[in-house]
Amino acid sequence: MAVEFVDLRAMFLRTKQGIHEFMSILQPRIENAKDDHERLYYHHIFEEEEQRLDRLNALLPTLDYYIDNAESRNSNDFQFIRLLQDISLEKFGLHNFLEHLDLALFSFKDPEHQDKLTKMRNITADDYQTIKVILESLNENFDGAANAAGSTPTDEKEDVDASLKIDKYTSTTPKQGDLIEKPREEKKTTKRLTVGSLKGTKEVM
Amino acid sequence: MAVEFVDLRAMFLRTKQGIHEFMSILQPRIENAKDDHERLYYHHIFEEEEQRLDRLNALLPTLDYYIDNAESRNSNDFQFIRLLQDISLEKFGLHNFLEHLDLALFSFKDPEHQDKLTKMRNITADDYQTIKVILESLNENFDGAANAAGSTPTDEKEDVDASLKIDKYTSTTPKQGDLIEKPREEKKTTKRLTVGSLKGTKEVM
Repeated sequence: MAVEFVDLRAMFLRTKQGIHEFMSILQPRIENAKDDHERLYYHHIFEEEEQRLDRLNALLPTLDYYIDNAESRNSNDFQFIRLLQDISLEKFGLHNFLEHLDLALFSFKDPEHQDKLTKMRNITADDYQTIKVILESLNENFDGAANAAGSTPTDEKEDVDASLKIDKYTSTTPKQGDLIEKPREEKKTTKRLTVGSLKGTKEVM
Repeated sequence: MAVEFVDLRAMFLRTKQGIHEFMSILQPRIENAKDDHERLYYHHIFEEEEQRLDRLNALLPTLDYYIDNAESRNSNDFQFIRLLQDISLEKFGLHNFLEHLDLALFSFKDPEHQDKLTKMRNITADDYQTIKVILESLNENFDGAANAAGSTPTDEKEDVDASLKIDKYTSTTPKQGDLIEKPREEKKTTKRLTVGSLKGTKEVM
């Protein structure tokens, strides 16, 4: 279990570095934009990644706390449940980053940027597959507490038409080395920090 | 105080309607995109707004609970603090929606779409100013508990260079009828659901 939290910590530090690198790529495009539309477009993506950075910076000390205090990890502790839910939201954040990087690959066509962005998108794609496996394991160990509204991208929603999804993101093939022995189960029983949690466990969504 | 939560409820229901309307505008663009770049671009914005919808749907029952149970509102209650922090994140969500709508105004040039999108962006701009005033009041009433990492857009950060901001979003002019009698204060003492909260109150960011 401890390994999962340590892995998440390394992943979040890695993606923080990615955010900084990506923001430094976007910055000159914002500053030298040819018109208001282009300026707003790059500003907008920059701002969303900066927000993800703010969230990660707030999350990491709590993660560190539970790495150091394994005895405090339990699914009756509000703070710990909230950490699990925040981690679940960062799963969406990684998927979103992947799309930001793929969008950037359409705009930054010179070899140097292509190379840098491709490396970042491949690292992010790997991390995204890994965080899904970790969350599955955390949900098994903590009564489904690591579910949060807003953590599942459109691409992976069963009730969304394929015409709205992007094929390359719909694959859930685990990377080599991941141990998934059974199909992913949706709609697990879960414990959440909502009004429902005042009344006990309930189904999510 | 109760009025604030009721106002927030009305605002969140209004922006939910806006999300649905916006998604239905984006959908044909995704389905009939001329290339992979265009398809990813509209899919990406659609997905982000759908995520906001998921978050709002999860938040509303908790908001309803505290509308009905005023006696439960206090800054020592984890669930209530988390609600305040989630509301604070939805402030960022409204700002982000405003930018999505302004981006769409560059792409959907026919009069019908321009009219619809302009109405939505003006409602959203008003709601954004209102939620800022409400959060200020909630912070005053609940020891700064309504602060959350990731709730302040780049446009309003004091430590970010103006070259990265968009002028029209940097104005903090309150709309007529709002009562702001003193300049906004940053870095208030606050109570948060982080490791820090185990140790007492601390400065945010």
